[in-house]
Amino acid sequence: MPEFIKLLPPGEALSILMERISAGAGCELIETNAALGRVTNTSVLAPHPLPSFSRSTVDGFALQAKDTYGASDSLPAYLKLIGEVPMGAAAGITVGNSQCALIHTGGMLPLGTDAVVMIEHTQVARPGEVEILKSVAVGENIIAVGEDITAGDEVVPAGKELREAEIGGLMALGITQLSVSKRPVVGILSSGDEVIPPQESPLPGQVRDVNTYSLQALVNKHGGVSALYGIIPDTVDELRKKAVQALKECDMVIITAGSSASERDLTALVVNELGEPGMLVHGVNVRPGKPTILAVCDNKVVIGLPGNPVSALVIAKLFVVPVLEKLLRLTHKPPEPSISAKLSINLSSQTGREDWVPVRLRKVTDGYLAEPIFGKSNLIFILVRADGLIRIPPSATGLRAGENVEVVLM
Amino acid sequence: MPEFIKLLPPGEALSILMERISAGAGCELIETNAALGRVTNTSVLAPHPLPSFSRSTVDGFALQAKDTYGASDSLPAYLKLIGEVPMGAAAGITVGNSQCALIHTGGMLPLGTDAVVMIEHTQVARPGEVEILKSVAVGENIIAVGEDITAGDEVVPAGKELREAEIGGLMALGITQLSVSKRPVVGILSSGDEVIPPQESPLPGQVRDVNTYSLQALVNKHGGVSALYGIIPDTVDELRKKAVQALKECDMVIITAGSSASERDLTALVVNELGEPGMLVHGVNVRPGKPTILAVCDNKVVIGLPGNPVSALVIAKLFVVPVLEKLLRLTHKPPEPSISAKLSINLSSQTGREDWVPVRLRKVTDGYLAEPIFGKSNLIFILVRADGLIRIPPSATGLRAGENVEVVLM
Repeated sequence: MPEFIKLLPPGEALSILMERISAGAGCELIETNAALGRVTNTSVLAPHPLPSFSRSTVDGFALQAKDTYGASDSLPAYLKLIGEVPMGAAAGITVGNSQCALIHTGGMLPLGTDAVVMIEHTQVARPGEVEILKSVAVGENIIAVGEDITAGDEVVPAGKELREAEIGGLMALGITQLSVSKRPVVGILSSGDEVIPPQESPLPGQVRDVNTYSLQALVNKHGGVSALYGIIPDTVDELRKKAVQALKECDMVIITAGSSASERDLTALVVNELGEPGMLVHGVNVRPGKPTILAVCDNKVVIGLPGNPVSALVIAKLFVVPVLEKLLRLTHKPPEPSISAKLSINLSSQTGREDWVPVRLRKVTDGYLAEPIFGKSNLIFILVRADGLIRIPPSATGLRAGENVEVVLM
Repeated sequence: MPEFIKLLPPGEALSILMERISAGAGCELIETNAALGRVTNTSVLAPHPLPSFSRSTVDGFALQAKDTYGASDSLPAYLKLIGEVPMGAAAGITVGNSQCALIHTGGMLPLGTDAVVMIEHTQVARPGEVEILKSVAVGENIIAVGEDITAGDEVVPAGKELREAEIGGLMALGITQLSVSKRPVVGILSSGDEVIPPQESPLPGQVRDVNTYSLQALVNKHGGVSALYGIIPDTVDELRKKAVQALKECDMVIITAGSSASERDLTALVVNELGEPGMLVHGVNVRPGKPTILAVCDNKVVIGLPGNPVSALVIAKLFVVPVLEKLLRLTHKPPEPSISAKLSINLSSQTGREDWVPVRLRKVTDGYLAEPIFGKSNLIFILVRADGLIRIPPSATGLRAGENVEVVLM
């Protein structure tokens, strides 16, 4: 097959591509409460400590710890109750020796106090007097100033995807806006003379466009914005025209080729003319997805995906997602979650080739069984029926039944 | 502590709540290409088979398999080339005995043919004649009608979250709209006299609202829509008024109590007056999050969350998320992904109580080390620093250093 002079291992192909990506997609200022899933563009530092005043962590009495030393049920310490700390306001009381003040959880510690005794360990014998039944140490039942975060500490590093906790933490510090990476705009072009829009009824020989929409969903899921350029007729001129436009308007371009060799050749031809350095990789040693094209044209990534829907999605996961993450400057990536399962049957593979096998997960008594779903890579319902994918590394000739495998959920 | 008469195990508490949820949040018709992450409301069946015509999976020659039997490099079969199958149109050719037609990947099989020989296993010796160098079986290199999906087959069951693959599969069948569960509207009320909006500068004794925003993010992430009712002053009248309004306008209501016992009592009081049957659970044997309130009022779930930010998020994960999933009618839930890790230190726990411990994950040579992050449950930055949570079951008195734990990512 003359079209693939050399099949590169997927890891190596990805490295070659990633090395050439320099620019991100830029940044924008947004409201923190709309920032779930967005990626921080700069390191955010705490403008002040949190809490900004010492707070009680219990309902009880604020006092001087030394006044409680030796106190017990049988030998209580007797303290004078001089007031109550209001919630949401300065304590407004100074507590002296042998004195205490009623305080609620979250209340501000009054001047002169260094600990709180829980209400359960006290008893009010006479009005204005509290019996302390247990001793406390200095700092007990208190959150000190800056115990949550210190002024100048890093709240969130640059390049981290914001979760519920980060949003709460930023709000706690009054950081109601922040700079995040812009969502990279990904242009999606479909080609193939046999492909028609899903809204139309196929005539004999025609099939509806699948890849535009599964790729759009993948791009959106991974933080990008999709720009759809529709189905392009299989001529050099039409494909070139649309690709040039998409490259101008987007941060990245994906072209799904028609399924035949001539249509793939057309994609390669057009990609190579789009800008320097052009095609970096043509053909990857992976199944499914061998006829993958990786290119950088005028500082933007262009990826030619195979036309088969399964190949297109698997290859998008291997190449489009890492590029999106790089454009988002997502450097603090959380560990990729997976499901451990036992493989149900033997799987063979060709040495040197990386295989991605769709599997269905079945709950069994001691965990999950991963059952491979066989079928041609042009059957989209293989992936609909699958829960995830397992990887057979290039070094292996297969995997054995009963072997533990990591299932990457889709 | 009189406020908790009986602490229920979290599993039991959840069952009691879930049993009382009958209604979902309703359904709506949306565009399939905007349905990523939405949950199907009805079972979707294939209106026609896919593919709807037999297609070639390779570039080659369509023919009758019997004409190739015995063919080899040294003894080719000679077939007459009678034409080329166009892409995207009916084949328009009938292939007879000892004849063949050029076909491209994805092309429609011409009448009379039952197999395709790959172009690599052929040679054109003379114009109009093809040498077949390898025999093929009937059906080889073909996708048959209905091989992807049969007419009437279930495309997606009811109650499944739509992924990239389902969207592609639906589009392949021309199903460009579908019925999904409406996003449940979740009313979020904060209370606490010490709590102020994040936009304001706290005076001594005041803290900014964290829970409204971390819970809003959690609700959005899990398929809900949040409706914010702001910070309610700590009086029965004010809280009741807002809670009644929220209950009327939303599918579910969350109230985060102030941190003191009296503020929690206030929430319990108000929740119990909202509607029948009222409070089902008051107090759960879990750390953090003991003072949780679970209620159903007039067929809608009302959850009283502890005011501490860590407790609020952990309890929301344990109770709010399952309720959302039930309102969404998400019955085909994918397995929850997690990260396996080795615990870095011993952790003790109280028998009978379920503990959720925030951990940081550190990559080590043979996987991950889970390092517990200690600190009081009112410190939001504990969760900011954490990658996930590990569970110490009620039956355990702790976990040992080196033990394998499953880390649920946040």
